[in-house]
Amino acid sequence: MSTLITNIGELVTNDPHAEDLLGALEDAALVVEGRDVAWVGRAADAPAADTVVDVGGRTVLPGFVDSHSHLVFAGDRSAEFAARMAGESYAAGGIRTTVAATRAATDEQLTAHVGRLVEEMLGQGTTTVEIKSGYGLTVRDEARSLAVARQFTEETTFLGAHVVPAETDPQAYVELVTGPMLEAAAPYARWIDAFCERGAFNADQARAVLAAGAALGLRGRLHANQLGPGPGVRLAAELGLTAVDHCTYLDDADVDALRDAGTIATLLPGVEFSTRQPYPDARRLLDAGVRVALASDCNPGSCFTSSLPFCLAMAVREMGMTPAEAVHAATYVGAAALDRHDVGALVPGRRADLQVLDAPSHVHLAYRPGVPLVRGVWVAGRPVVTAAWG
Amino acid sequence: MSTLITNIGELVTNDPHAEDLLGALEDAALVVEGRDVAWVGRAADAPAADTVVDVGGRTVLPGFVDSHSHLVFAGDRSAEFAARMAGESYAAGGIRTTVAATRAATDEQLTAHVGRLVEEMLGQGTTTVEIKSGYGLTVRDEARSLAVARQFTEETTFLGAHVVPAETDPQAYVELVTGPMLEAAAPYARWIDAFCERGAFNADQARAVLAAGAALGLRGRLHANQLGPGPGVRLAAELGLTAVDHCTYLDDADVDALRDAGTIATLLPGVEFSTRQPYPDARRLLDAGVRVALASDCNPGSCFTSSLPFCLAMAVREMGMTPAEAVHAATYVGAAALDRHDVGALVPGRRADLQVLDAPSHVHLAYRPGVPLVRGVWVAGRPVVTAAWG
Ligand SMILES: [Zn+2]
Ligand SMILES: [Zn+2]
Repeated sequence: MSTLITNIGELVTNDPHAEDLLGALEDAALVVEGRDVAWVGRAADAPAADTVVDVGGRTVLPGFVDSHSHLVFAGDRSAEFAARMAGESYAAGGIRTTVAATRAATDEQLTAHVGRLVEEMLGQGTTTVEIKSGYGLTVRDEARSLAVARQFTEETTFLGAHVVPAETDPQAYVELVTGPMLEAAAPYARWIDAFCERGAFNADQARAVLAAGAALGLRGRLHANQLGPGPGVRLAAELGLTAVDHCTYLDDADVDALRDAGTIATLLPGVEFSTRQPYPDARRLLDAGVRVALASDCNPGSCFTSSLPFCLAMAVREMGMTPAEAVHAATYVGAAALDRHDVGALVPGRRADLQVLDAPSHVHLAYRPGVPLVRGVWVAGRPVVTAAWG
Repeated sequence: MSTLITNIGELVTNDPHAEDLLGALEDAALVVEGRDVAWVGRAADAPAADTVVDVGGRTVLPGFVDSHSHLVFAGDRSAEFAARMAGESYAAGGIRTTVAATRAATDEQLTAHVGRLVEEMLGQGTTTVEIKSGYGLTVRDEARSLAVARQFTEETTFLGAHVVPAETDPQAYVELVTGPMLEAAAPYARWIDAFCERGAFNADQARAVLAAGAALGLRGRLHANQLGPGPGVRLAAELGLTAVDHCTYLDDADVDALRDAGTIATLLPGVEFSTRQPYPDARRLLDAGVRVALASDCNPGSCFTSSLPFCLAMAVREMGMTPAEAVHAATYVGAAALDRHDVGALVPGRRADLQVLDAPSHVHLAYRPGVPLVRGVWVAGRPVVTAAWG
């Protein structure tokens, strides 16, 4: 069963062998066979197929790969956001509110909530999403958070080391995280993560958490250098992690370490938008030869956007990325940041995860900020979101 | 024929007699009779109606009133945007490209293009839109631009004084605009506008354009103080205009003049986003007692967003507005900026133009930037956009 998608005004392939970053083809077509891409090229040269879909000159690009999100939570923190924007203090807020609400929620409530957010992401072009735990912070609640997440993605991350719970001794908590909590969480997780930042976990603690995870086969990632300079980014490079996330406050040694280690810097501009902090400098990283991914960090406290188109537009406006670099960072590099080589590009053999934009080129994602341009989404060769076009 | 819309988690009425800015009601309901709102109040107190619509605890607010757009154009300028973001010069760009493409387009092409953009706006909650001419710049092309716009809105604005066309003497062009061009355009226009800025039209020219329009019954508005300080804002106040748009570069005398005249400052943050210019200071204006409206300025050159939710989020992040002030500015004050008192509020007697947000409160418009939250839109008492909810 093959499908020919044709009359593609611009096809972003992300072919790494192409001369331009996006491997973009004009007047293009793509053939899907089963779950995968079987052929890409000029529409005029396309082979026959069982079905034909004409996208009317629109843009087709790989589905977004959102390599950083915290979707398993309950409760609402919009009032805390409004107070922050007004420059007011807000005593009742903070992550502990979310932890309490998440612990109190049933599995069914958590599952329904994650399902709504995954659906919302899909409608905005995200076809692969990483989901972290980190609002349970007990053995039971971290394990069930990951079991919930696992229903929606293979890319689950155990983040017991998100914050030290109230009235808990930090060192005792690290022992819990690296012991019984990890043991309960590991069957549901592919990754292990720690928030390495002043006020959260220091470098030694983060190192211990990742080492314990590695012993059970979990791959490491880190939150680091979000709120100020710190040792997290250099630790990530030293450990040879695939990616380290936030990277807002970097010195030259951090940048060099990322480049030399080949560790991807995952930038999360929705966080700086929603906390009114300075944006990370993507241009500096790219110019230094560091690979940059973009992700949402969708979470109730510091950034409740699920929209990669929004994050792309901010990266272009505020972080010195070109529209092409931003698209590449949210697709090809996002996949690489999850060690995934089956998604993130539309070349033969990769999975046919793609989106159709109601626009003549990928530039419109930044040129038309906020406008919902996604008109169709395919996952593993099948259409899952379809809007009318004519 | 009456409809009860009930189970509204938050109803933004914009009732000017309420104690809070938004006249917000919780656990609310609203009754539509024909085209208008007949009743609003607590759901428990709602009267019976012929039909009942349960919005499941979602937020209902007035449709957005976008009081500034330039939708009548042809051609694509995304490459110019990408070059600007990369800090590169782009010789081929500029408004003259759009003027040439607009003149070359057929009426049918222009109508189809405006229709697509108006539809796109509707899907993002905009139920009233002002549309300007200004890419024709000949007697024929300005008149037909307005005739096209008139098919979609009553709020049409003649902007022959947008820019002096290439190889034209400025003073001769002002005579054309105030003479034969105005005469041809006036039957299709409610408003007349001029771009009063260094490099466009000076204060004397802008005054002459608005005076000529007034003689034919057109109400005046101005583009002013976008690119630098200038006389436009004070001219608007002196003439007692309803609104003056952009207001990015203001001195204290400008602010005082706006307050004393009661002229609304319409801010257009999408422009500053897309041109990477400093944002206007809404907080300063509000604190001084000036009324502030938000609009999109949707146009192919300086801002191609059609999304008022995006503009609201930018106003909160960058311009010191609270989420409530931003919502009010894009609804109630937007209506006032068009001298419209039949829309912009959900109180008995106003038109039932409303939107249903998939969110527990209006704060989510800024708290969830880029996320398409609009799930239903009603115009004049009838649903025109309906998404599934459950
Ligand atoms: Zn995070
Ligand atoms: Zn304008």
